[in-house]
Amino acid sequence: MLDLINSVAYLSPISNLFSAASPVLAETSEAEIGPLVLAGVLVSLIAIYFAAKVGGELCARINLPPVLGELVGGVVVGVSALNLIVFPESTEGAGSLITDFLQMTAGLQPELASSVFAAQSEVISVLAELGVIILLFEIGLESDLKELIRVGPQAAVVAIVGVVVPFAAGTAGLIAFFGISTIPAIFAGAALTATSIGITAKVLAELQQLSSKEGQIIIGAAVLDDVLGIIVLAVVASLAKTGEIEILNVVYLIVGAAVFLVGAILVGRLLSPFFVGLVDQLKTRGQLIISSLIFAFVLAYIASAIQLEAILGAFAAGLILAETTKRRELEEKITPIADMLVPIFFVTVGARTDLSVLNPAVPSNREGLIIASFLIVVAIVGKVITGFVVFGQPGINRLAIGIGMVPRGEVGLVFAGVGSASGALSESLEAAIIVMVILTTFLAPPLLRIVFKDEDEADAVSEAVTGSELEEAES
Amino acid sequence: MLDLINSVAYLSPISNLFSAASPVLAETSEAEIGPLVLAGVLVSLIAIYFAAKVGGELCARINLPPVLGELVGGVVVGVSALNLIVFPESTEGAGSLITDFLQMTAGLQPELASSVFAAQSEVISVLAELGVIILLFEIGLESDLKELIRVGPQAAVVAIVGVVVPFAAGTAGLIAFFGISTIPAIFAGAALTATSIGITAKVLAELQQLSSKEGQIIIGAAVLDDVLGIIVLAVVASLAKTGEIEILNVVYLIVGAAVFLVGAILVGRLLSPFFVGLVDQLKTRGQLIISSLIFAFVLAYIASAIQLEAILGAFAAGLILAETTKRRELEEKITPIADMLVPIFFVTVGARTDLSVLNPAVPSNREGLIIASFLIVVAIVGKVITGFVVFGQPGINRLAIGIGMVPRGEVGLVFAGVGSASGALSESLEAAIIVMVILTTFLAPPLLRIVFKDEDEADAVSEAVTGSELEEAES
Repeated sequence: MLDLINSVAYLSPISNLFSAASPVLAETSEAEIGPLVLAGVLVSLIAIYFAAKVGGELCARINLPPVLGELVGGVVVGVSALNLIVFPESTEGAGSLITDFLQMTAGLQPELASSVFAAQSEVISVLAELGVIILLFEIGLESDLKELIRVGPQAAVVAIVGVVVPFAAGTAGLIAFFGISTIPAIFAGAALTATSIGITAKVLAELQQLSSKEGQIIIGAAVLDDVLGIIVLAVVASLAKTGEIEILNVVYLIVGAAVFLVGAILVGRLLSPFFVGLVDQLKTRGQLIISSLIFAFVLAYIASAIQLEAILGAFAAGLILAETTKRRELEEKITPIADMLVPIFFVTVGARTDLSVLNPAVPSNREGLIIASFLIVVAIVGKVITGFVVFGQPGINRLAIGIGMVPRGEVGLVFAGVGSASGALSESLEAAIIVMVILTTFLAPPLLRIVFKDEDEADAVSEAVTGSELEEAES
Repeated sequence: MLDLINSVAYLSPISNLFSAASPVLAETSEAEIGPLVLAGVLVSLIAIYFAAKVGGELCARINLPPVLGELVGGVVVGVSALNLIVFPESTEGAGSLITDFLQMTAGLQPELASSVFAAQSEVISVLAELGVIILLFEIGLESDLKELIRVGPQAAVVAIVGVVVPFAAGTAGLIAFFGISTIPAIFAGAALTATSIGITAKVLAELQQLSSKEGQIIIGAAVLDDVLGIIVLAVVASLAKTGEIEILNVVYLIVGAAVFLVGAILVGRLLSPFFVGLVDQLKTRGQLIISSLIFAFVLAYIASAIQLEAILGAFAAGLILAETTKRRELEEKITPIADMLVPIFFVTVGARTDLSVLNPAVPSNREGLIIASFLIVVAIVGKVITGFVVFGQPGINRLAIGIGMVPRGEVGLVFAGVGSASGALSESLEAAIIVMVILTTFLAPPLLRIVFKDEDEADAVSEAVTGSELEEAES
């Protein structure tokens, strides 16, 4: 009896079992695990949405950015605490609490557990990646291309200073103060150059500062920083591998990025009237959203195929479509999709963050924590000063720009990952980089809110002062 | 140089590589293939959306239901033609044209091709499953629980007749006319009982007949048919395996389904005021959509865990939320999400359909095609008559109800799949079932449009007649 229930278990989500329907059928593992993977994804999404909403709402109530709550919610359900949302590389494929839950409730058999876990993690990873692609598309839609071009020179200065200063100070300091040898020091210095465009842009959107001059400078600089980060990574990786820098590759990346961004925007602007005309002629449901997604995914794919990032393509697509008459309608349509997918990205970023490296009770963490303190100082100071090199913009909130560049997010961790994979980093140095990434990522959102709020209050105070002066003058 | 580009290739989509960020890092296969899986998913989605829109628009222009165009578009990009969207079980994991494309453009290495292909297919499968879950949630939202309960008895009769008649006629006919032995004949008969709620509901929505009395009877009957289908499948599978019917399991399924559907709706209605109150108190973005998705996914998971289908849970969730004051807002918010995910379901249904079984030039197909002609007749007649057993509803479009129950879709193929896996079906009988499923699935949408249109025209004619009679009477 139970045997039959089990044998029917994997057949029950009937509509999902088309996979079992090829003319010549065998009991493929796909057919066996398919419905269980779906069940695992559903439970994972429930946990992710729950973490995102509880974290986000709590943060909103104590006046912190909701995205910080999503990150912290992710930490709570992730590898550091509840072990609900974890990924094979941090558990050696052993599965999560959700895997156990499926075994208890959905008839998952132990011998299939690891393949279901792997497949479900892959799906959640890709959903998170689609989330950040949709986020950047939305950011692009809400950005103003003309304003971005206008603040381009300032953004370029911010990006370049924000790469050069932390890199130079970090590398030199590690060699001078900690006696670390050149290659690992360069890796750690490189990790200091990153900026997480996702986190910054989300906080800016939450503060409704995305279209402010400061917001546009930060976004422009963060996009350029992404490109610079890819170049720095290529340089550092080749240095670690061969001991020398391959100039041709660096040139290829720089030229590729420039051609892609400028080309996409020029060609896109030329073609966008045809896009609008085409959409207007379509009669079936979802004509605007599907056409726009095709456009965004094509650019995202091209960007990733030429060794840039998919999110850069999505951002460019958003920028281009923002210039069309469809902007408002598209913003409305993309909002629920972003609401559905973007939290998956932030929660999984939190879930992958392993806080155990912060535990000073573990002796091997201590050296890392000391180096980390140094890296954190460089990481914050090196980015905060970028706001003060902005020229020709009197009255701008320089502190806000600098702090907007602080979060390293996932980008910084990639450097740690590549360094570790290449064997260049010691364990304590790797831990130090991860601590630096965690701190800058989690500190930047509340700091950003404070500096933008101070500005508002300063305005309010000066208005109040003016008001009382006026009253005095009148009396 | 190229070497470096390749080594950087898998690092470039930086934000997606958090996976490479665990404290102790190794070159995990996840980290190597992650960005390529994303690239594969992006290209697959582009192909799917393109197929859906081209097919849907062409059908809309020649007055056929757009969903038929999505199915046909799927066939064109699928295993039968372009080989863009295919799944491991139909290619023995050899990959698709997209795999080749990634090798040419995104630096996918041949030795990683099959794992990238498997992961990307898994992601697309789950996205399709999420698509049909969202579709049924949307259908539930647009349904009227009171109307559904009112037409419940009629829907039950339609469902039961639509299961009993095709099953009995099909099984008896196969034994009598074709000399097929009992167990395979029962399997084929069982495959005739299915109804694809997804396809019918989508066509009804496109014809704006979802909330008509006919529409609600069809939806109610299709939901019951889904439950009956699970029971029939359990019975047949146990018959094939042990030669006898396990009564306890059948009772378990029937009781489980009844308790779940009735319980979910009762408890859901009790709790829905709290749900609305909670949503009203939330302050962060996406409060309604995320809360609703949590609710829908929880019910979907429960349904799938108790051996029912995830889509039944999603439908129940939609029904419950339709009773709240949030209905309209939620319908608006869910539309773009459905627009994004639902076409993935229909296109992959088409893509998995292997039309090669239809080719009469292949000798082994011929026997199958002859049996298929018989099955098709039973499949259509057996369902069409269900409309004529509806009682107490004078003036109802009986033909429309019967034809609404005709498409077998993915559900029919599951029977073929299970039968084949159990070794009960011969190759020609399996091919015959697949041909029957294809024909009923692709024929029903245009037929449904015709019968609903005839009704409109008949109305128009009778009005015209009445009009001219009036004129005559006046003159």
